Order: sequence, then C-alpha cells, then structure tokens
Amino acid sequence: MSRAYTALVHYPVLDRDGRLVTSAVTNLDVHDLARSSRTFGLAGYFVVTPIGAQRRIVERILEHWHDGPGATRVPERGEALARCEPVASVALAVEQITARDKLAPWLLATSARAPSGRPPLTYASARERIARDPRPVLLVFGTGHGLGPEVLSAVDELLAPIDGVDGYNHLSVRAAAAITLDRLFGSLTR
Amino acid sequence: MSRAYTALVHYPVLDRDGRLVTSAVTNLDVHDLARSSRTFGLAGYFVVTPIGAQRRIVERILEHWHDGPGATRVPERGEALARCEPVASVALAVEQITARDKLAPWLLATSARAPSGRPPLTYASARERIARDPRPVLLVFGTGHGLGPEVLSAVDELLAPIDGVDGYNHLSVRAAAAITLDRLFGSLTR
Repeated sequence: MSRAYTALVHYPVLDRDGRLVTSAVTNLDVHDLARSSRTFGLAGYFVVTPIGAQRRIVERILEHWHDGPGATRVPERGEALARCEPVASVALAVEQITARDKLAPWLLATSARAPSGRPPLTYASARERIARDPRPVLLVFGTGHGLGPEVLSAVDELLAPIDGVDGYNHLSVRAAAAITLDRLFGSLTR
Repeated sequence: MSRAYTALVHYPVLDRDGRLVTSAVTNLDVHDLARSSRTFGLAGYFVVTPIGAQRRIVERILEHWHDGPGATRVPERGEALARCEPVASVALAVEQITARDKLAPWLLATSARAPSGRPPLTYASARERIARDPRPVLLVFGTGHGLGPEVLSAVDELLAPIDGVDGYNHLSVRAAAAITLDRLFGSLTR
C-alpha cells in the first residue's frame, strides 16, 4: 500500500449559512486526528490554516508534546503528534507530500453532504483504489460545515457520506475522521 | 434490534499509573458522543460522574443547546444532546434503562488493553448478539486510561481493542467511541 496522509482544513470551509469562512483551530482536533492517523498507520497529518497566528498555536501544541513537559508525561502522544504539521493551504500540503514521496498525491475528500452530479466512491472502492494506486493519497477533511467548493472541485474523488440510521448526519469531524480511517485502513477481520 | 445506550464513565477509571481516579468531564466529549450516539440510532447517552458539580456542568451544557441560544442556532445539536443525561454511577444508568425499557440491560465494555483471562467479543459477534438478545445493551466507555477493575468485572462482555496497524493504540475516547458505534451499528454496505 502507498503512503497516506490526512489534512484538516480550516479554510476554505463553509459556515452554517453556506458562506466561505476560516474556522479556528481546535486543540482537541490537533490531538484526535493525530492519534487516529498514527493508530491507522498514516504517514502524516496536516493542519491547514492560512492564518499565521493559528499555525503558531499548532506549533506550540506540538512543541509541548514533542520537546516540552508532555513528552515525558505521555510519550505516545508525542509520537502521534510527531507526524502533525501546520501548513497554510491544501496546495502546500500537496507540495510537501510530493517532495517527501517524489510523487504527487491524489486527493480524496469526505463530505457530510452527498455531492451533486458526481458519484461518490464507496469505502470499499476507495480502499481498493488506495491499495492499487501507486501515488500517495491525501484524505481531506473539512471543519465548520464542510469544505468549500474550491477544494471539493479540486479533489480527485469524493467519499460517500457516513450514513447513520435515519438520515441524521451531524458527526464531529473528530468522529467522522476516526470512522473514515477505520473504514479505509482498519483491519477487515473484526 | 433492541435498544442501545452509551455510557461515558469518569469514575472509576485509571490514571496513567494505574491508580483509581475521577476524571473531569470534557465539554467536547459530551457533544461528540451525543452526536455519534444519535447518528447511529442509539436510545440514550449517560455521562457518568459521582461529582455533583460536574453533573451540573453537563446539565448547563444541555440547557444551552436544548432551551438556550444553541437550540435556535444549531437545532440538530439539541436533537443529539436531548438523549444525553448525567448520572452518578453506572448502576444508576442501569436503573434508568431498566425503568424505561422494563428490562435490565446487558453491559458491553470497550477497553484499549486486551483483557487478561477473558476472551473478548469480536465486533461481528457483538453485533450479532445485540441483534439476538432481547435486552437493551449498555456500551460502557472509560475516560482517562480506561475503566477501573470494578466496572470491568461487572460487565457481561468485553469488546476486543480497536487494532491499529502495529500495536499502537492511543485513540481518544471520542474517536474510539465513534469507531465502536460504526462497527456495531453502522451500515454493512459501504
């Protein structure tokens, strides 16, 4: 299998009314997606925000757990966060991956809303494509009320929304990312 | 299928050094597990803490989203939190379920550590048992470094730990609960 990466996007994302906004970085998102990414063997996790002050917050969190008091107290947390990196845009995450793996990644986005006019990949076929495609894959998650159209139209494939029991779909991005990684990279014997 | 409930336990849980402690309620745990429970059709979610002041914090969070400003702004959040309730102990959660469903629940706990001397249920067999057993099921999740021995020995069954790729297992309880609910209640066609 090729290498896989996650990106958590804070811009461009939509707010409740469908307007393009920049969401604020949430401390627990940095931790939770790093821990989930590490558990399922992903090669890296990008926290995407164009706001420099927000990227510095992420760097301070990483320092605390990597070199600071957190590193001694909870070493496995530092191990998860070691693969986390703040970047200013999805394009820069793509550049980083390309530089590391000498191959540009294909992009797979998740969306709580079913995309219009574009059949989403099932989890089984995404899993199969990840196994088959020699390129690294970048899984793109949106905060707020989901990824902006600029990112959605730039990705190669969309994943089907995670279906609850009766159409209710209001998972946190922490929960949705965990479920997505388990469906794509978790053991099939359970 | 019978009704299912989740409980997030803040006492008795273990700290890093294996001591019994009471962990503090985390705001995002209240939200995330309520949203995941609602998405997968569970009947209720208990936040378990023996500390009255902590239960009142949970009640204030619920009020904000149920009757307060949050109810108008994000109605689907109120819908998820409507099934959330703070209780002082796992025993009281069991009492509540028994009163509602006229049938005592069986208890299924999850643990990041493989239990010693007791074969855990696979997710497939737990799913099958939930479908077959007429009693409601209470899924018990621990905060901190996992459930205390008093709870672990009182539950009917243990679930196998969520396996990452190389033995690393340090998921947040928000991520672990989301994956567990998806594995037990999510659609099998994906």
